[in-house]
Amino acid sequence: MIGTATGRTTRAERVSATRDAILTTAERLFAEHGLFAVSNRQISEAAGQGNNTAVGYHFGTKADLVRAIVRRHAEPIERLRQEMVARCAGSTDIRDWVGCLIRPFTEHLAALGNPTWYARFGAQVMTDPGFRRIMTEESLGSPSLHEVVAGLDRCLPDLPSEVRAERGDMARQLMVHMCAERERALAEGTPTPRATWRDASSGLVDAITGLWLAPVTGAN
Amino acid sequence: MIGTATGRTTRAERVSATRDAILTTAERLFAEHGLFAVSNRQISEAAGQGNNTAVGYHFGTKADLVRAIVRRHAEPIERLRQEMVARCAGSTDIRDWVGCLIRPFTEHLAALGNPTWYARFGAQVMTDPGFRRIMTEESLGSPSLHEVVAGLDRCLPDLPSEVRAERGDMARQLMVHMCAERERALAEGTPTPRATWRDASSGLVDAITGLWLAPVTGAN
Repeated sequence: MIGTATGRTTRAERVSATRDAILTTAERLFAEHGLFAVSNRQISEAAGQGNNTAVGYHFGTKADLVRAIVRRHAEPIERLRQEMVARCAGSTDIRDWVGCLIRPFTEHLAALGNPTWYARFGAQVMTDPGFRRIMTEESLGSPSLHEVVAGLDRCLPDLPSEVRAERGDMARQLMVHMCAERERALAEGTPTPRATWRDASSGLVDAITGLWLAPVTGAN
Repeated sequence: MIGTATGRTTRAERVSATRDAILTTAERLFAEHGLFAVSNRQISEAAGQGNNTAVGYHFGTKADLVRAIVRRHAEPIERLRQEMVARCAGSTDIRDWVGCLIRPFTEHLAALGNPTWYARFGAQVMTDPGFRRIMTEESLGSPSLHEVVAGLDRCLPDLPSEVRAERGDMARQLMVHMCAERERALAEGTPTPRATWRDASSGLVDAITGLWLAPVTGAN
């Protein structure tokens, strides 16, 4: 019985290690070469799987694989955001809430060390007509994000609802694409503004706060 | 001799019509299905070319095709921007110069009618690790864009150079990705803030002006 239990554990561990290797390899290949340029077969090979159908066996379709990569990062990001939201409870300083939007993502990237691939992967997922829905669906389930939206609501000026919606989209686009640009520059060794992810997040919080507070002119 | 000349003209016109059909079809397929999902063969077929190698024959590689699509739009956008820059000469109102950045793109999209595909195509090109350089190279050659940067320089507050660079990137990312989101919503019939491209560009000018003028806190 002990032998059997050990055998089971070992197999579960092996499966878990294989899944990890596939997710890490897929994220890197997608970030560097593009979501569509990379096949499941190439990922299986690069992840050191003798069996070229390993990706399909462990994850199903490419959309399922993309979703698994998103979920793997969503969990630590959600934990970071819950901690920040708890610290900001009751705040009416808009910068606090913009920080709760941006910093869980940048702190997560900083904690992963250099190079990271998730920001570039995420920017592609957000821009791809087929995959973008996955990112939206996964973030809808974030309880902390609902608290951030409520916190922002309490300190934003009174904005027409379409401007409100538009500026929310702008904040999201800026976070995703500016972080992807910075990650690419770090990976390629090209110049990028700001020395650290923390400094980069300060730049984003400054700019997004300015954007939220900008007068609505209705000018043509 | 006259017969020969006529024959040549007709052939040149036929080639030009074929190239136009390929560019229009490729842009639409790329926008709707993604840059990598669509093959040159699929474009040839969808453009009504009996010969499946028509794209390769007329344009070369996929990168050459992408560049040809970018150039086809860059010319009318450049003309619009030159007119706006001429009207803004000497202005020290930052909104005028932000307008010169944004409105040539949105007015071009408005002039094309609905649906358009170029904003979604452009957002993918900007995000793709392989193709993004094409967009940058083509815009470097724009004389009017240099004048806009000089105009902005004259009315921006004194910003640290890294913040200056960063906010320039932010303005570009916002223009490209917000226009792509709006174009997608129009094409799919889903709700989007702002009734017209002109209103959407006002929203972008308001927000980007706020972003450029935001205090630099250096806060962590």
